[in-house]
Amino acid sequence: MTRQLHLNAFLMNTGHHEASWRLPESDPYAHVDLAHYVGLARIAERGTFDSLFLADSPQLWGGVAQRPSGALEPLTLLTALATATEHIGLIATASTSYNAPYNLARRFASLDILSGGRAGWNIVTTAGAEAARNFGVEDEPAHADRYARAAEFLDVALKLWDSWEDDLIVADKAAGVWGDDAKLHPPRHRGPYFSVEGALNVPRSPQGYPLLVQAGSSEDGKRFAARYAEAVFTAQQTLADAQAFYAGLKSLTRAAGRDPDHIKVLPGIVPVLGSTEAEARANERVLEEHIVHEHGRDRLENLLRLEPGTLDLDAELPSGLPPESEIEGAKSRYTLVVGLARRERLTVRQLIGRLGGGRGHLTFAGTPEQVADAIEAWFSQGAADGFNIMPALLPSGLEAFVEHVVPLLRARGLLRTEYGPRRTLRERYGLPRPANRYVTDRTSDLATA
Amino acid sequence: MTRQLHLNAFLMNTGHHEASWRLPESDPYAHVDLAHYVGLARIAERGTFDSLFLADSPQLWGGVAQRPSGALEPLTLLTALATATEHIGLIATASTSYNAPYNLARRFASLDILSGGRAGWNIVTTAGAEAARNFGVEDEPAHADRYARAAEFLDVALKLWDSWEDDLIVADKAAGVWGDDAKLHPPRHRGPYFSVEGALNVPRSPQGYPLLVQAGSSEDGKRFAARYAEAVFTAQQTLADAQAFYAGLKSLTRAAGRDPDHIKVLPGIVPVLGSTEAEARANERVLEEHIVHEHGRDRLENLLRLEPGTLDLDAELPSGLPPESEIEGAKSRYTLVVGLARRERLTVRQLIGRLGGGRGHLTFAGTPEQVADAIEAWFSQGAADGFNIMPALLPSGLEAFVEHVVPLLRARGLLRTEYGPRRTLRERYGLPRPANRYVTDRTSDLATA
Repeated sequence: MTRQLHLNAFLMNTGHHEASWRLPESDPYAHVDLAHYVGLARIAERGTFDSLFLADSPQLWGGVAQRPSGALEPLTLLTALATATEHIGLIATASTSYNAPYNLARRFASLDILSGGRAGWNIVTTAGAEAARNFGVEDEPAHADRYARAAEFLDVALKLWDSWEDDLIVADKAAGVWGDDAKLHPPRHRGPYFSVEGALNVPRSPQGYPLLVQAGSSEDGKRFAARYAEAVFTAQQTLADAQAFYAGLKSLTRAAGRDPDHIKVLPGIVPVLGSTEAEARANERVLEEHIVHEHGRDRLENLLRLEPGTLDLDAELPSGLPPESEIEGAKSRYTLVVGLARRERLTVRQLIGRLGGGRGHLTFAGTPEQVADAIEAWFSQGAADGFNIMPALLPSGLEAFVEHVVPLLRARGLLRTEYGPRRTLRERYGLPRPANRYVTDRTSDLATA
Repeated sequence: MTRQLHLNAFLMNTGHHEASWRLPESDPYAHVDLAHYVGLARIAERGTFDSLFLADSPQLWGGVAQRPSGALEPLTLLTALATATEHIGLIATASTSYNAPYNLARRFASLDILSGGRAGWNIVTTAGAEAARNFGVEDEPAHADRYARAAEFLDVALKLWDSWEDDLIVADKAAGVWGDDAKLHPPRHRGPYFSVEGALNVPRSPQGYPLLVQAGSSEDGKRFAARYAEAVFTAQQTLADAQAFYAGLKSLTRAAGRDPDHIKVLPGIVPVLGSTEAEARANERVLEEHIVHEHGRDRLENLLRLEPGTLDLDAELPSGLPPESEIEGAKSRYTLVVGLARRERLTVRQLIGRLGGGRGHLTFAGTPEQVADAIEAWFSQGAADGFNIMPALLPSGLEAFVEHVVPLLRARGLLRTEYGPRRTLRERYGLPRPANRYVTDRTSDLATA
């Protein structure tokens, strides 16, 4: 069989274009409407996507005036979607900086059990002082500290997920013995960030633990991904950049002692479709016309750590911006945005238009054939194992992708035509089920890693 | 209309009897089986119960040998049940000692939104060193400290749930204005236990916030309930004790400046049904015969803070047990168990048999008429506003209650025959929707408190 493309649907209220909510078709209350998300999940299942994904940060971003604000907590929403879907994977973002490992490990194990092995965790360390101050932390934690805590968090969570062997339950009613205490392994973890004594209070889940996903592309982020991640979401603007990122991450993963095929790289793409290229460009322009550029300038100044009112909408970015190494916040996003502006010599207004579509992800306006060609090109030329599909408008953009692009990908043999017998999210991504670290002297037909 | 009885179904894997899992009909994997819980929820909806309830503690209790161990995380499981049910309330236990207010407030608001206003929170402070050590806390926190933290947790959570006014969303597409920043109220809370700066990142939910439930009956627990709780679960063995508890809590609630009718008291009852009283007693004996008394002794020694092996199964409890005031753990449970043993002069073996049925809650074996009579007696004689139904066996015990006792309660005019037009959990319990503290100069048809 041809190497298969992996597709993830990145869901976001009315769409990834910042002005999407202003279009006539959009529901400005979509972000709190379960029916909206159930509809999206079912469209994605029609398109035999591998997974759904929800981003998150435990904070309200800069007020509520500019666009739909706030969001249902991702694990909660995806749990509701688990019962409304049958096949698709469910990837929730959760922060290692503002959760306790015991609670979060248990919630993911619970979702994995309830969904029949479809849970995934997008691991984030959560930049910024605003989030910190919602958790009693006054100062923005340093980038390196966040990643050190994240690594220990993962070590603890993995110990917790291994704390029950798969065959612990005996269920011997006659003898009155339910489980085998010898197959229980409390972590007894003592570390600089966490101390966790006891075993998890939920059995090992169908996947062993959720699919581990990561999306930070800083140097710390890539090292973290190489060590733990099985799928990586990334923002890349050009084929060459995407190829470099792909090769670099696979090589780091090999250097970390892992099979580079066990980390799947999915760049983001914002497809804007039209029956002709001109129609697609016109659809893109309609969205751009709804951008309030002053709002975009506020956010850009925040990202670039500039004083409010510094940027001139009709000039290029000022010179003398600090290097990424001096940024403690969203490092890779900073570099991507500054790089895009410099490379294409964009004015601030033009830059805001480009970012409005997908916050730095590749926006691609074209016919279904052109979008399928772009996807195939990146997929076949060492830039991607699949794509993170980020429709500008929802639900119509996902509907159009499934209606018009998915059949082309299937016709080219790149995408499944139906969900096969494999059932867990990890199996969909072609990844092995992780073995339990404590099962070394017994053979298990489940443990293939 | 006659004063209406409120019924809550307390769900627990194969039932509340500790030996329930050993019976032929029981599924020892029920605790991780979504279909099992969906089935229970639907039986409870057939019985027009007000709500479902799941207990919890973030720890694995004493190994896995004795009985089904571990549980799906309650908010996660109830979120899955929200989509499988239409009317019934969903009450999840969560700890104030081992959660961050921002995260927990958001999860409950998310469930309340997803379920159309059916979320409830059973607020627990979580006794014991085992749970503490799963969260980096070496020593068992003192009872009073746990309650001080709980009170501040509630204050913060209530501020977060009020941080969006109900009509904040403007959704003016033409003007590009989504929300009104003037209706956003960040808590900016600074306290001994928590500092929380920003507004919640989810809108105010249908109920304003989840129904607040409490189940601790210590002096600290009752004061806490009088201040915050809208429903209280309690374990009472005799009508007189239940009447004293009921009157005391209503009076404390009045003293706290609240309407005593705005706190509903629900004692637990373990109904064991039979078509004759003899058959019911026989059904009870079958359960008792499956108890492993040595396991019960281990747990009793743990509760009473005695060295393992101290208790003689065929003697009464030793004299010289410490008073409740010296117990830092589960105070009210301690007093209830010791009181039951002393009052009825039970041997340890007999005590274990009694506790096996409902861990100190009232076990009542009888015909449907006898159970309905007992419920009506407590309800009409100032001992209860409703009951926490804790079937010894699940699903069969809940099925039998709905099939045989519910029709009698309906015939007596005590229980609704169908779910009426009222939709939220708080409305089912006859409680007003809480007003938003920041809406003082505007009238709101939603705010009736």
